[in-house]
Amino acid sequence: MQRPPLAGGTAGPAALRPLIDVVLDALHQGAKTRGGPLPPGGPEPVAQRVHAAATTFPTPGTPLPAQDTGGQKPRTTLIPAHGTGAEEALATLVRTLAEGSADPAEPHCAAHLHTPPLALATAADLAAGALNPSMDSWDQAPAASALEALLTRSLAQEIWPHGGGPPTTSGTPGPTGDALVTTGGTESNQLALLLAREHHGPVQIVCGAHTHHSIHRAAWLLGLPDPVVVPAPTGTTDLAALDAALTAQRSRPTLVVATAGTTDTGAIDPLPAIADLCATHHAELHVDAAYGGPLLFSDRHRPRLAGLEHAHTVTLDLHKLGWQPVAAGLLAVADPNRLAPLGHRADYLNADDDTEAGLPDLLGRSLRTTRRPDALKIAVTLRALGRDGLAHLVDHVCAHATQLAQLIDQHPQLELYEHPTISTVLFRPRDADDHAVAHIRRTLLANGTAVLGRAHARGRLWLKATLLNPHLTPHDLHTLLDTTLSATTPRATTPPPTKGSPR
Amino acid sequence: MQRPPLAGGTAGPAALRPLIDVVLDALHQGAKTRGGPLPPGGPEPVAQRVHAAATTFPTPGTPLPAQDTGGQKPRTTLIPAHGTGAEEALATLVRTLAEGSADPAEPHCAAHLHTPPLALATAADLAAGALNPSMDSWDQAPAASALEALLTRSLAQEIWPHGGGPPTTSGTPGPTGDALVTTGGTESNQLALLLAREHHGPVQIVCGAHTHHSIHRAAWLLGLPDPVVVPAPTGTTDLAALDAALTAQRSRPTLVVATAGTTDTGAIDPLPAIADLCATHHAELHVDAAYGGPLLFSDRHRPRLAGLEHAHTVTLDLHKLGWQPVAAGLLAVADPNRLAPLGHRADYLNADDDTEAGLPDLLGRSLRTTRRPDALKIAVTLRALGRDGLAHLVDHVCAHATQLAQLIDQHPQLELYEHPTISTVLFRPRDADDHAVAHIRRTLLANGTAVLGRAHARGRLWLKATLLNPHLTPHDLHTLLDTTLSATTPRATTPPPTKGSPR
Repeated sequence: MQRPPLAGGTAGPAALRPLIDVVLDALHQGAKTRGGPLPPGGPEPVAQRVHAAATTFPTPGTPLPAQDTGGQKPRTTLIPAHGTGAEEALATLVRTLAEGSADPAEPHCAAHLHTPPLALATAADLAAGALNPSMDSWDQAPAASALEALLTRSLAQEIWPHGGGPPTTSGTPGPTGDALVTTGGTESNQLALLLAREHHGPVQIVCGAHTHHSIHRAAWLLGLPDPVVVPAPTGTTDLAALDAALTAQRSRPTLVVATAGTTDTGAIDPLPAIADLCATHHAELHVDAAYGGPLLFSDRHRPRLAGLEHAHTVTLDLHKLGWQPVAAGLLAVADPNRLAPLGHRADYLNADDDTEAGLPDLLGRSLRTTRRPDALKIAVTLRALGRDGLAHLVDHVCAHATQLAQLIDQHPQLELYEHPTISTVLFRPRDADDHAVAHIRRTLLANGTAVLGRAHARGRLWLKATLLNPHLTPHDLHTLLDTTLSATTPRATTPPPTKGSPR
Repeated sequence: MQRPPLAGGTAGPAALRPLIDVVLDALHQGAKTRGGPLPPGGPEPVAQRVHAAATTFPTPGTPLPAQDTGGQKPRTTLIPAHGTGAEEALATLVRTLAEGSADPAEPHCAAHLHTPPLALATAADLAAGALNPSMDSWDQAPAASALEALLTRSLAQEIWPHGGGPPTTSGTPGPTGDALVTTGGTESNQLALLLAREHHGPVQIVCGAHTHHSIHRAAWLLGLPDPVVVPAPTGTTDLAALDAALTAQRSRPTLVVATAGTTDTGAIDPLPAIADLCATHHAELHVDAAYGGPLLFSDRHRPRLAGLEHAHTVTLDLHKLGWQPVAAGLLAVADPNRLAPLGHRADYLNADDDTEAGLPDLLGRSLRTTRRPDALKIAVTLRALGRDGLAHLVDHVCAHATQLAQLIDQHPQLELYEHPTISTVLFRPRDADDHAVAHIRRTLLANGTAVLGRAHARGRLWLKATLLNPHLTPHDLHTLLDTTLSATTPRATTPPPTKGSPR
């Protein structure tokens, strides 16, 4: 039996090339067959197609498990007794996946902070997979660890250009900030709470009602008290309520969590005022800028993040407004000394005598051990586009949101929630109740014609368009609204007559 | 300014193709220039080359940050003010990374459970990056979520072919087991402890001295008591000591952690005896099979995992003995009802009325929110190779380890630790003390000639070869030993005269 080729070494690229051709063809065919932002019909037909593709095998494959089943009917499995070969497996499963995807590169796929990745970032990530550095020890990632260190310091400087750590008594700037690479905003927020816990003990989180759910989940995970939730009636933290909540904490160690770009509306908390309150009450400040962080690159939009530099920790997430394939999260830390509690020894990875002899100790850079070098695709993207190229993309999607909001505002049948802060636009048909709004969203999904999100705001349910695709055209914005309105008619709630027909 | 193309949609594959050509060329050139398992010279020259490549930019790029630096000298950054373009950025950084990698596809790169990925798995992962499904809601991952569900149940059936959950009183099999996809063994172990905590409250962990460090780290993270550590003088859990430790717990909720394939030696705990002790003492059993789990695919080696089916939870990690690029971790769970505590609501992802209307609720499948579809590459690999193809690879690396052990055992200058259990071989020069052994490893790294690991066992330090490359030849095994012995001479500790010369 032949051993399948490896991706690495000098021979890897030649082995990868024909397989990648199969993948690219399957991606293209799948996208053509899908013919829209997502497959029509809803969950059941998609699951059936995946099931059929993944659990039936051409000769000589067979679906029978090799193991003894104790006289019972063999259960369904996607593991054949004999393999179908690389080309067949890639063609079948990649095409099935593409045909059944909600593809954020499609103009009408705009529900979530679910970015359409740049081709150049996706191509860079291939190299990460082929070389497979693991970021937990230097001897698994010599260059990748050096590149990650440059990347994390470079990004921290975007937040704290004058140094992030506490200034010395003589007024000279503090040390350069740093960042840890994470799997996304959720892990970044978890790390921020963990660092606060390790510095202060069982710290009390105080956050707005609009704060991402991952903050509550992290408090549960880490055994911290339930967060104190401050109202956010206008979509951002109510400052008087925050002041009162902090006063009530008295001398208890407190971490305030503010948000720069909420998931529901893209709203940005009044960071300077919140930072002032934190200073007054001796509370620390974490800012979840998973969405809004990349506004830093834009001369036009950077002022909206004024005050971010007062944060002790900042969540960034470049698989949102940074056009990276998942994962590309970061937790930026003003004072790198705060990372010390993550220090951890495992003799096979960072023995004392190896560290003393000059081998870098990487284990304290993450709670994970084995870790993919997500730094590569991010570094390639930053270099390829530069600060102004990224700003250009940020400005574009923000401008699209403004345009969409104007279209909605001028439309007699539609109601706009408010002018967008970043690139999220909430709207609803004027004559629809909450039940109808939810039903429209599900009808669009079932029809396969648009992927819109949903958000509660001011006591009502809204449709949500999260615009992250820099290639949208004005025509796309018009048709997105037309498609949405067409789903409000009873006719459109029935399943479409043909499935998978090209648009 | 032109907007860079996206990876998705019908146009994505055509945009990816030329960029991937750049990546494959850069990978090939970088591997050729490196000319060995890792770059010679140690950490400092590698960091310097990465720094030079990543922070200097061809015209029109410039390293000056656009932001005001307050009159200070601009700090180093890898973000240019203007981009260098996709081709330049990919060529420069991918080549730099490849040149500076410790490449597990090279025969002498054998320190860690750091796998050389299969080309077909790496190619499949490209599709995950291009389509960018996010596994936290159905409307971001229609087909990917269906494929993941099939994969996780298929893998759980390999452990519990007769059903994993508790049998009914009538003796019919319990429900099919399930698994969660994780970033690796560390997250899997963390999840196992979390599930135990949520089921029992502050559960006491009892584990062997040889247990992976992530168990201790997870207990710290989750606020659990420090694990009770049972001696493992022969490399596996001492059963009498475990019995005594469990007796001492009395009626306290206890989770025993056993290991099937330790990081240091590949040893497998006596699972049937440990399972019996757990049953006697009403303790639960978690098995960390991050390394050994794929022995399940091999008729020859599966018997070594006898008893695994008694575990409540099992850590698997197919970026070790499964030849996946990172990440490909799983936590398999015998009783899927045990996953209930991970249930979590976030209105934008799994609102009650959406779930009632039939949209799958995915948020309880992970502690992460946004999540890459690592299921794809795993499913493609299982389909392409089949059970027997995977078994063939597993058998091969185990056979290599046996061959290497025999070579060592017959070598007058070398001492073998013991016959390998899986594919890890510990050895040392007969006349070397621990200091010399550590020095040999670092000399090989500095020379760029081999990447070996280190492990303490029976009170001494050993060199560790973790064989995961199925393409090794008998010649490679010979030269690995010759190279190691050459590093014991004083001459070899000096840096090599030419750096990066092709082998």
